[in-house]
Amino acid sequence: MLHTHLKNIEEREVVPGYHGQFIHSDTMTVAHWNIEAHRDMPEHAHPHEQIFNLLEGTFELTVAGETVVAEPGTVVVIPPNVKHAGRSLSNCRVIDIFYPVRKEYQ
Amino acid sequence: MLHTHLKNIEEREVVPGYHGQFIHSDTMTVAHWNIEAHRDMPEHAHPHEQIFNLLEGTFELTVAGETVVAEPGTVVVIPPNVKHAGRSLSNCRVIDIFYPVRKEYQ
Repeated sequence: MLHTHLKNIEEREVVPGYHGQFIHSDTMTVAHWNIEAHRDMPEHAHPHEQIFNLLEGTFELTVAGETVVAEPGTVVVIPPNVKHAGRSLSNCRVIDIFYPVRKEYQ
Repeated sequence: MLHTHLKNIEEREVVPGYHGQFIHSDTMTVAHWNIEAHRDMPEHAHPHEQIFNLLEGTFELTVAGETVVAEPGTVVVIPPNVKHAGRSLSNCRVIDIFYPVRKEYQ
């Protein structure tokens, strides 16, 4: 069994203010994010399917030009290759999941 | 964009004390669980890969006969077709992710 704890996983500031911890299985990546308030995630896209889960805070997420203000409990499915961007309106905790594995985060 | 909020998703008591809310993409299922204290998840297996993420509480998880006492921040990867079982030692919040989709939860 692969089991670990976030306290043992290196944190990477992938984009300024976006502190991520990544766990990979054979097929999926789960990203645990601590995001500082008022920080931008620039528009980007990737071939991976993504499900965004907001745990804490308020986060403005724009997918294919449509914007939602996410509150805790908001879940958003982002299809492959669709452009998306975000901005934290407060400190946030997010869990993103990806299929397939995000190899650049391994 | 598919976006939703947990307050709009039906809660299903899949096993006594295990209250799940499920969101499906094309490739993955994410399960948001509220688990009552001192409840057993019987041993089972499935062909889906699973990543268990404990958000709140204490949960005893046994995978292939190996037991871990999970605390908030514990992450466990459960390979396909491997028997696993659990017991909540307190009220718990868990996010489980699965590849491929858990069709029986759709």
